[in-house]
Amino acid sequence: MKKLLVLPGDGIGPEIVTEALKVLDKVKEKFGLSVSVDEALLGGAAIDATGNPLPAETLDKAMSADALLMGAVGGPKWDHLETSKRPEKGLLGLRSSLNLFANLRPAILYPQLASASTLKPDVVSGLDILIVRELTGGIYFGEPRGIRTLENGERQGYNTYVYSESEIRRIGRVAFEAARKRGGRVCSVDKSNVLEVTVLWREIMEEVAKKYPDVELEHMYVDNAAMQLVRAPRQFDVMVTGNMFGDILSDCAAMLTGSIGMLPSASLDADNKGLYEPVHGSAPDIAGQGVANPLATILSLAMLLRYSFAEAEAAVAIEQAVSKVLDAGLRTADIWSDGLQKVSTQAMGDAVAAAI
Amino acid sequence: MKKLLVLPGDGIGPEIVTEALKVLDKVKEKFGLSVSVDEALLGGAAIDATGNPLPAETLDKAMSADALLMGAVGGPKWDHLETSKRPEKGLLGLRSSLNLFANLRPAILYPQLASASTLKPDVVSGLDILIVRELTGGIYFGEPRGIRTLENGERQGYNTYVYSESEIRRIGRVAFEAARKRGGRVCSVDKSNVLEVTVLWREIMEEVAKKYPDVELEHMYVDNAAMQLVRAPRQFDVMVTGNMFGDILSDCAAMLTGSIGMLPSASLDADNKGLYEPVHGSAPDIAGQGVANPLATILSLAMLLRYSFAEAEAAVAIEQAVSKVLDAGLRTADIWSDGLQKVSTQAMGDAVAAAI
Ligand SMILES: CC(C)[C@H](C(=O)O)[C@@H](O)C(=O)O
Ligand SMILES: CC(C)[C@H](C(=O)O)[C@@H](O)C(=O)O
Repeated sequence: MKKLLVLPGDGIGPEIVTEALKVLDKVKEKFGLSVSVDEALLGGAAIDATGNPLPAETLDKAMSADALLMGAVGGPKWDHLETSKRPEKGLLGLRSSLNLFANLRPAILYPQLASASTLKPDVVSGLDILIVRELTGGIYFGEPRGIRTLENGERQGYNTYVYSESEIRRIGRVAFEAARKRGGRVCSVDKSNVLEVTVLWREIMEEVAKKYPDVELEHMYVDNAAMQLVRAPRQFDVMVTGNMFGDILSDCAAMLTGSIGMLPSASLDADNKGLYEPVHGSAPDIAGQGVANPLATILSLAMLLRYSFAEAEAAVAIEQAVSKVLDAGLRTADIWSDGLQKVSTQAMGDAVAAAI
Repeated sequence: MKKLLVLPGDGIGPEIVTEALKVLDKVKEKFGLSVSVDEALLGGAAIDATGNPLPAETLDKAMSADALLMGAVGGPKWDHLETSKRPEKGLLGLRSSLNLFANLRPAILYPQLASASTLKPDVVSGLDILIVRELTGGIYFGEPRGIRTLENGERQGYNTYVYSESEIRRIGRVAFEAARKRGGRVCSVDKSNVLEVTVLWREIMEEVAKKYPDVELEHMYVDNAAMQLVRAPRQFDVMVTGNMFGDILSDCAAMLTGSIGMLPSASLDADNKGLYEPVHGSAPDIAGQGVANPLATILSLAMLLRYSFAEAEAAVAIEQAVSKVLDAGLRTADIWSDGLQKVSTQAMGDAVAAAI
């Protein structure tokens, strides 16, 4: 019996997670999977109920689960709180406590949705990039950090961007292993012409590369990487980078597809225990209206089955069901265009479940 | 007599600067400007000649100049050098020594080059964003920085992301002043849901905004900003952000236009003394072939005349000459397409000078 912990979170989180669980029920039945489902509070929902974005009970359940499926966290309601008490802190605490250092963010253009991209079709058609982002280190977690008052009386804010060899090595390996199963190319993104921490990053990537003679390693400065994603995104296979650069570049890459409502992500520890979540946010502006796109969450469930539960067959079944539903012309509002059938969050979930 | 210091730099730098000087000669003649031109070594060229990317003689000349026009610095030839000795260090040293804290990077789509963008015409036509990047602080200059060996024997790289209130306030003012002369909107980009230094950034931007009731201030997280640049770039008027985020977002924004060979930039101190340079790099792969696009450098000269020499008329003349040459169908290789006339670096410079 595998233990799944569900963290609906905030905004559209609860709605989209509900649809993913519908789909889980169908694949459990079809493939005879034995999965128990528990639920816990995270983010703003947890703040409202307990005052803490990551309550002890949630952390306990997370520790003993085999995998976690999250909706989304955060929203303007909690924007006045200080950084250390915000919904996001719950998510960051979870990533860190569970050692989920490897964040995999595919940016894939679904052929059925090609026209949704703001980029010209000949630039993005067939796009399939995997961004591997380090998730438990770098400037997100570096100490010292804070806001202090200088001798002259003015305040100064500071954070620390820090990586050790072993942190770089382990995320490097994840990227090279992934590249081996894909296009065989890794692009490591840094700013080694300015930042010492990324000089070490580049050096360790070179070292890791020696163990993967079948994989090609290229280095790119982060400013150039942002340009190249816009100029010629198909040049990339796997991109590997630190926490902050990965946050920026993965959102940029996701948006190239024009359908961020379709993109799942996985955050894994060294043993393939993972937290799975859509790339998009909590979209408080449309929460509760039944119009959110549940497909990124449903596809996150597919990643979960593949990586954490080693149920590749069930994962493929979900991915194929999503494809079928798109082929049939069903679209939530965010990916809808003239001539296609606009459906609600629930109807989309029902359709995918039915297509399993 | 205004003193102009020219820093050709590396790669295509010398070729493109030569063309800008041709154009300067023409506007000097036409508008009776009194400008003296001196030249100095910077970057890789300076390393080769003196071992130092920013020789004392260059710094002396830079200090006493009224404005500086740069080509570009850096290239693979110097990539093996450590961060503190690289060509880029010369540029960073110059920015810092001259207090050039305000980097203005326009991202403008030239109607004549609309098809060069990888984005769909309806998404980018008429694009006109001004990115205001803080240039002498943040993680580029923060201390402590380096690579140290931990007790367990492994190395750790670290940099410090730091801003004080006064640094944020002065770049904020530049952005609001610019917005007042443009669309009246400022978007401040931070990561205040994670980084304390940008919590202070956001707070000070709010404070500055109070002095500009006619300008609208919006805040955006950097990951979302990268997405929005791809999704709907015309929503932005002025964007203001720190050194590192500005490096990434300004290159992304520049690439949206599809013709980065056209984009100038200005780096100003508090008295409008400035260093002007194209947004593109040193392009060592095409250096010396006479195919580089000199227009970004020529347009940088126009910015220089406008901001540092207060010669708006001469600036406009250059900008109109560039437009005329584009209208006439002349294109360097980077912006050339079928049916237009492909010209060399030199022919492009000649044509602009002739059109003055
Ligand atoms: C919510 C926020 C803290 C988070 C991050 O910056 O990591 C989000 O943007 C993401 O990319 O998962
Ligand atoms: C050359 C490099 C140091 C520089 C920077 O990162 O500032 C460049 O990318 C730029 O944007 O002017």
